[in-house]
Order: sequence, then structure tokens, then C-alpha cells
Amino acid sequence: MASSGEEWSPDTLAFMDLAIQQAKLALDSLEVPVGCVILEDGKVIAAGRNRTTETRNATRHAEMEAIDVLLDQWQKNGLSQSEIAEKFSKCCLYVTCEPCIMCAAALSILGIKEVYYGCANEKFGGCGSILSLHLSDSKMLNRFTF
Amino acid sequence: MASSGEEWSPDTLAFMDLAIQQAKLALDSLEVPVGCVILEDGKVIAAGRNRTTETRNATRHAEMEAIDVLLDQWQKNGLSQSEIAEKFSKCCLYVTCEPCIMCAAALSILGIKEVYYGCANEKFGGCGSILSLHLSDSKMLNRFTF
Repeated sequence: MASSGEEWSPDTLAFMDLAIQQAKLALDSLEVPVGCVILEDGKVIAAGRNRTTETRNATRHAEMEAIDVLLDQWQKNGLSQSEIAEKFSKCCLYVTCEPCIMCAAALSILGIKEVYYGCANEKFGGCGSILSLHLSDSKMLNRFTF
Repeated sequence: MASSGEEWSPDTLAFMDLAIQQAKLALDSLEVPVGCVILEDGKVIAAGRNRTTETRNATRHAEMEAIDVLLDQWQKNGLSQSEIAEKFSKCCLYVTCEPCIMCAAALSILGIKEVYYGCANEKFGGCGSILSLHLSDSKMLNRFTF
């Protein structure tokens, strides 16, 4: 996760803009407006938006949607578990709102390399606001690193 | 979540035995052996077992599998989001190993009433071992209650 003090590159801003477009699509569907994109080697390979109302499943956050796009695709392509882990380790996520604790833990389990988020999630944020599941220097959470 | 000091009823032990049977099925499939069952009004309505290897998806823990069984069924039956939330609020989960942080957060988001687990999960446990996402008296996590 990049810190908020950094200068953002045009590419970073462009990727966040794509995430915002996903959030707008969610809003058009009367969802809580959160959107994201996932990049591998600097290329957008998946997008997701919050679909909790449409799916009637409160866990279908934007990040989970985007992750499942990739998993479906990689599984169909016959990638092994270690090949999938290897691919996730090269992926960055851009999301409009800080991942919640569930999503932050899922991203850690999958081994996503980096997360960039827009606004903080002061109620449920798992990347600094409530918990810091991305920190590698926590003794208790040393497997929960991005 | 019940505390470890309680005396368990024969029913509780029988439900945990069903969860253990699910864990054995996972072991037979060369998965990390974790299994669970979900009850509504004292009746088993779903079961799940760890399928991370089979699905090549590191987030497919037993709890997520069982939850998705119910969500699929309730969505097919046309239940609304609030009806689904109402049903989850009557559900108890019995799982052989303490839910990880991701699963504990997901169970909280869905509003599951109670979780009973067998062994503690001292690496990743979200119900007391590493984090206590079930506690209702945490100011910062007051929405993350079972």
C-alpha cells in the first residue's frame, strides 16, 4: 500500500480513474459506489464493482468480484495453485475505498503485491484505518502481508 | 462464540462431529482438513469443507463454501437481501478450526449469530487467537459482531 504522502504518477491516477468508473457503474445500479481494477505488470487484467445488492450477498465487495474474474480465467486456462499464486504476487489493486477487513485478509491470503486506495474506510478498513493487515512487521500477522 | 470453559451439550458435540466428518472428507481430498456445518433453528442446513487445492483458490475455506451453499439456495428461492440477513441472524456455525480473519470478518458482515469452533487457529484466527472480530464491546469494531 502506498502512503498518502507520495506524489502520484499519471499512470497511477489513470488506474484510479478506471476504478472510479467502476464505482460509478455500481452507483448507477444503486449499489454502494466502490470500484476497483487489478493490474499485472502494469496492464489492467480485471475490474470489479460492489454488487452486494444485486447478488443479495453482503460479501460481494468490488475486490472479491475482481479476484473471482481472475480466478475463473486462470482456472479455465489450467493454471496450477502455485502458478496462480505467482501471478497474484505480480498484481496491484487500485480501489476507490480502502479494503474492509475481510477483503484485506483475502488479498493477503492470495498474496496480492500492492494495494492503492482512494478514501479511507474509517468503519471497516483493514489497510490502516481499523486494522493494518498489510504490515509485514507485525509479529502476530506476519503472514498477512501484501 | 461460546467460551472454552462451558460444558457442551450432546447436540453441540453431535454438530461438531458433523463438522469433523466434513474435515475428514477434505483430508481424503488432500486438502487442509477443516470442515463446518451451519444450523438454522437447530437444524443443519449447509455443510462445507476446505477446497483451496481443488479450486486453486486460496480463499475457498470451509466457511465460505458453506455460506455460498446457502446464498445460492436462498437467492434461487427469491429471498431479498433483508430476508437473507434475517435468516443468517438465526444461524450458528460449527467449524473444526477457528475461522481465519477473512472468514471471521465475512461471518460478521453476514450477521451470523454464533460460531463454535474446535481447535484454535493460532496463526490466523479471527475469533480470539489473533484478532477478536466477534467482540461487541470493541469501539472500533462494533459492526463486527456475531
